Amino acid sequence: MPLLPFLTPRAVAIVGASSEPAKRGHRAMQSLLAAGFEGSIYPVNPRATEILGLRAYPDVQAIPGAVDLALICTAAATVPEIIEQCGRKNIAGAVVLALGFSEGGPAGRELEQRAVDAARSAGVRLIGPNTSGIFNTHCGLNLVGFSDLRKGGIGIISQSGNVALALATEGHLNGHVGFSTYIGVGNEADLRFHDYLAHMGSDPHTQAVAVYVEGFKDAVPFLDTAADVTRRKPVVLYKGGRTETGRNAVRSHTGSLAGNYAIARSCLREAGVVVVERSDALLPVTEALSLLPPLRSRRVAVLADGGGHATIAADALTQAGLKLCALDAATRQRLADALSPLASTANPVDIANSGDRGPGVIAECAEILLADPQVDGLLVVGMFGGFAIRFSETLAEAEASAGTRFAGLLAKHGKPIIMHSIFARLQPEALRRVRRGGIPLHDSIEMAALTLGMLADYSDWIRRPPAMPPLAATPAPVGARAIVHKAQADGRTALTEAEALDLLEAHGIAVPKRLVVTGPGNPARIVEQFAGAPLALKILSSDILHKSDVGGVMLDVRGPAEIERGLAALVARVRQRAPEAVIHGVLVTPMAPAGAEVIIGMTRDPQYGPVLMFGLGGIHVEATRDVAFRRLPVTRGDALALMSEIRGQARLDGVRGRPGVDRGQLATLIARISELCLAHPAIAELDLNPVIAGPDACAIADARILVRR
Amino acid sequence: MPLLPFLTPRAVAIVGASSEPAKRGHRAMQSLLAAGFEGSIYPVNPRATEILGLRAYPDVQAIPGAVDLALICTAAATVPEIIEQCGRKNIAGAVVLALGFSEGGPAGRELEQRAVDAARSAGVRLIGPNTSGIFNTHCGLNLVGFSDLRKGGIGIISQSGNVALALATEGHLNGHVGFSTYIGVGNEADLRFHDYLAHMGSDPHTQAVAVYVEGFKDAVPFLDTAADVTRRKPVVLYKGGRTETGRNAVRSHTGSLAGNYAIARSCLREAGVVVVERSDALLPVTEALSLLPPLRSRRVAVLADGGGHATIAADALTQAGLKLCALDAATRQRLADALSPLASTANPVDIANSGDRGPGVIAECAEILLADPQVDGLLVVGMFGGFAIRFSETLAEAEASAGTRFAGLLAKHGKPIIMHSIFARLQPEALRRVRRGGIPLHDSIEMAALTLGMLADYSDWIRRPPAMPPLAATPAPVGARAIVHKAQADGRTALTEAEALDLLEAHGIAVPKRLVVTGPGNPARIVEQFAGAPLALKILSSDILHKSDVGGVMLDVRGPAEIERGLAALVARVRQRAPEAVIHGVLVTPMAPAGAEVIIGMTRDPQYGPVLMFGLGGIHVEATRDVAFRRLPVTRGDALALMSEIRGQARLDGVRGRPGVDRGQLATLIARISELCLAHPAIAELDLNPVIAGPDACAIADARILVRR
Repeated sequence: MPLLPFLTPRAVAIVGASSEPAKRGHRAMQSLLAAGFEGSIYPVNPRATEILGLRAYPDVQAIPGAVDLALICTAAATVPEIIEQCGRKNIAGAVVLALGFSEGGPAGRELEQRAVDAARSAGVRLIGPNTSGIFNTHCGLNLVGFSDLRKGGIGIISQSGNVALALATEGHLNGHVGFSTYIGVGNEADLRFHDYLAHMGSDPHTQAVAVYVEGFKDAVPFLDTAADVTRRKPVVLYKGGRTETGRNAVRSHTGSLAGNYAIARSCLREAGVVVVERSDALLPVTEALSLLPPLRSRRVAVLADGGGHATIAADALTQAGLKLCALDAATRQRLADALSPLASTANPVDIANSGDRGPGVIAECAEILLADPQVDGLLVVGMFGGFAIRFSETLAEAEASAGTRFAGLLAKHGKPIIMHSIFARLQPEALRRVRRGGIPLHDSIEMAALTLGMLADYSDWIRRPPAMPPLAATPAPVGARAIVHKAQADGRTALTEAEALDLLEAHGIAVPKRLVVTGPGNPARIVEQFAGAPLALKILSSDILHKSDVGGVMLDVRGPAEIERGLAALVARVRQRAPEAVIHGVLVTPMAPAGAEVIIGMTRDPQYGPVLMFGLGGIHVEATRDVAFRRLPVTRGDALALMSEIRGQARLDGVRGRPGVDRGQLATLIARISELCLAHPAIAELDLNPVIAGPDACAIADARILVRR
Repeated sequence: MPLLPFLTPRAVAIVGASSEPAKRGHRAMQSLLAAGFEGSIYPVNPRATEILGLRAYPDVQAIPGAVDLALICTAAATVPEIIEQCGRKNIAGAVVLALGFSEGGPAGRELEQRAVDAARSAGVRLIGPNTSGIFNTHCGLNLVGFSDLRKGGIGIISQSGNVALALATEGHLNGHVGFSTYIGVGNEADLRFHDYLAHMGSDPHTQAVAVYVEGFKDAVPFLDTAADVTRRKPVVLYKGGRTETGRNAVRSHTGSLAGNYAIARSCLREAGVVVVERSDALLPVTEALSLLPPLRSRRVAVLADGGGHATIAADALTQAGLKLCALDAATRQRLADALSPLASTANPVDIANSGDRGPGVIAECAEILLADPQVDGLLVVGMFGGFAIRFSETLAEAEASAGTRFAGLLAKHGKPIIMHSIFARLQPEALRRVRRGGIPLHDSIEMAALTLGMLADYSDWIRRPPAMPPLAATPAPVGARAIVHKAQADGRTALTEAEALDLLEAHGIAVPKRLVVTGPGNPARIVEQFAGAPLALKILSSDILHKSDVGGVMLDVRGPAEIERGLAALVARVRQRAPEAVIHGVLVTPMAPAGAEVIIGMTRDPQYGPVLMFGLGGIHVEATRDVAFRRLPVTRGDALALMSEIRGQARLDGVRGRPGVDRGQLATLIARISELCLAHPAIAELDLNPVIAGPDACAIADARILVRR
């Protein structure tokens, strides 16, 4: 039973229905009638008695029968009052099209709040406002006015009406992609992305969900819902606002916050959402995932009728994260028997001039490949479907028969098959048959390969055991809490580095041996305390966030004379460059040992909550941008997975005889940082950068902790 | 005057013409007749007197008139003899379709050589063998049998017939992309890629060239030709064999060498070739570059009719390397006057609900944006062309008029315009008019943005002054030559590290202070010679390429005792692990100072010749894969450009108070290495890895030089 039954209404009221063709209330009536809505339609307009042949009512309460859903086409200012009327009529849901709410400024925000208040007290759920509308093909409900809608299994939830229109049009043109329900989320004033996703998860007509989002109002419930729904149905998402420029566009166009794209992507993927990086991949990937069985492994085969396409497919599949497997000897023999001597029976298989034997040979080879236990998926590329067009109309029948044979392969072998054809857009009979068998068709090899790669990702996800519920956070040790409280009591938002290290140590995290020198110090004693090791001197001031910007760091200081001069010079330099800063002293630590520079950070994302960042490059992380994110809590296992998501993760391994990083130790450190941050809700931000990760230990070479006021 | 006039023949002989529909010689005749070839067609077949209504001749010599071009459809074995006959008939060019030549093994290679010999002595130029054929729409020549060919300005040179078929079909389906000449290069036995490119450069009907290549037989002449042709016409190229898997496919399917993709891409780009990374971008990018004027800068504007598409476009353009510029205040005022108050007049411009004012408002805004001096290019995204479809047929006329207005904008403003429309594939009248005005149309925003990014790259290229002819290589100093000769005389292919450093030093390149110790050495003296600095000990053996793999490196060795133990332990360890290796001694150097680890390498690519590599990560370069290539000679200016091509190039800059790399010094080092390698053709490979680049100097921490036998 779908969670939001009013999205499959038996009766709809069109408030603001109109006989004037240019009005939205007219177009809404027209498309509802054109789509063959199965239930009752009640136009509401106080100035009309009849609209498009249907009796009109002055208000919703005048409607004789029960009504499930109202489409409100009137101006923004009228909406709260109409919602109250809907409540009195026991209408469960209302779709509000008007603009001029929270996206438009303070007055609109206030109006939106009034509409929400009215909805809450009236017991009406709101879709929108500022929504393009909704549709449900399975009951002929079209409240968005898209034409040529094809009934099918793909649900759409979108923050943009034009993006939804593009998907619907693409489906119509492809001739084989159909839709179930569309919801334009608009301003998410009441119902939000996660409500719609839960609904689609419960909707038997929806087999896969395509999502376009710029910014969620409630990201965390979306992740929780997605982690559940994606176990049963694929959810494919494209996120707008990936770049700074895009985020500015989002802010100025809709007022919503797009946030940090990398964090959003990490969190969404961890919830099983398939995130596509191009908007034009949204429908093809959703379609493939809705049609195909999971890939048992990443080992796939390519079947081509030309060397060029075989090569392009091999490259594209490799870049999509798939592997071209070696074929069994028996398979190669069977291929050799079926093909001309000029064919290549290695994967990618190229039938070369064997097409002269007719198009049936391609279906024959597909079957041979699918029967190979090494092969878990198949990509067919080239000109199948175009033999009759390219060579001779006399081949049409044989080609159509081959299409029928292809159509049966998915059910017979239970392995995913995707087909690329030069002639896909021409929709010849052979390809229509292939498609009827549930095999996705593409005219781009890259898109075909990408969909297979995304299917592999989704297949990994549904095999992954569900995450354990996180353990309760360990309370922070008293000493650690005292450090945070002291800073807060002092009215500071930053700990000094010494405090940060003390805090880490209080949580049992190994930190460098250190000394805080507040005056001239005793250089000889310092040398002795650090056993003569080269030292780092760093200014301690909670007013200074970036010590090196004010000359507050001195490295590789050796011997009493250098220490004496160094301490004095450091303080003098900072006094000059940051005269306002209160200086607590100088932190003395040994220089960090050699190793890989990494960064471990924690930030509280406005949308996704506390998120841990791990990255390579340490202080150069801005240059390498090689980072991965995970929501807290991050276990040791999560931390190991994080490391493997890093592009240059091989840097953590030994090379040229130099020892690699102890990943286990690094994972332990990351997990402890996660625990620490959960134990201290007052910590707003944490940065260990760099951490020098080596074969024996991870040395925290700098620590920065910000606290809430 | 085109370089290869026989590609615009007045008379064609079809050798192996046939009346049997399944034969290639029949299909060739059919498509030549169907394409309306303007010249004479002479079927050649000793067993026929008439084919498809044309008189047939027993051999080419029996043909009464002059013949420019022969299409040879017969089996491989007959080809050399037929070429001889063509020579006697003064036929200038022959297209050889048959397979079974060098792609098929030793016997085929021998046959191909015989065909080439015959062609050379007969004065016939060969296209193929193993070619899919050629076409020239401008004289109705269709020797490849593609149907529905559209006449136009795009030339195709392809190593794959299927890829060409895909391009031709895509052009046909789009309804607006036309082609001039196609050449399937086949095995490049005689005429090669660069010959065809030079021809297309000289062909007045060809405005842009699309190339599909896996491996060139002659890469360097192609680069030279491209550097010339691309000054006049864009050359867009997709290269197959980008991955290891793809390269294996190339080898097994065509026998050609795909080579290192990164090297190929660098060299091609340096020759002005626009290299696309997806095969499905080949035609759209070629089309855009053939139609549009250059972009004066990367500052562009977006015009959208919805916030979602505005955001996607802003993201896609940013990721394609373009910048959304701020608009002049006057422009924003003009937009505000034309649009509803809910519209956003910042870039990306979103007309929001102003579409209610009719489709003309989009053309109006486009004109306002193009008149802004800040705006050098425009991307229009959304549903233009679909107003009549989406809303009301009554809008069709206004929309078509707006299309006409759009059509005039390119000529009027001289700035590139690209349009995305949800309805592009439906080809409504409004969009047909836009297209007739020379504006490329797309149904993918990402593809539209990519084409604009590639246009920006090409525009940069045509503005770049032509490269100066390289100076003659400086001869190597005698001492340097002696080092190489000694190694060769010893029968070695590797210099020891000490020799490599000596060689570098002989060329005036700063190398670390060093000492070769051959016995137990004098540890106290060593300490003194290096002023007590921590030392690196490295085994010297030309038999050992990777010293650390056999424990042949010891780092951070301090004091006489450590040196004594270290020298002994190092030699003992290597003796045990590499008992066969001849040990020349131990190289002692100071530890390199801190800095950025980079790699400078030189390799002689089998296709592109000597190539310099620069990369970040030093010994971790395999993990970072952050490298760029340049053909020798590499000047200081080239070296600076190389550095800016590195993904993480910001690592070369100072961060957190640490000084950056002296790019000038690094550039000098790179240029000197280039000179050195040119002066020593005997050097097969060179690797300085890592070079520790710092603010004051570049320290060569390891050097490996391989020489030819």
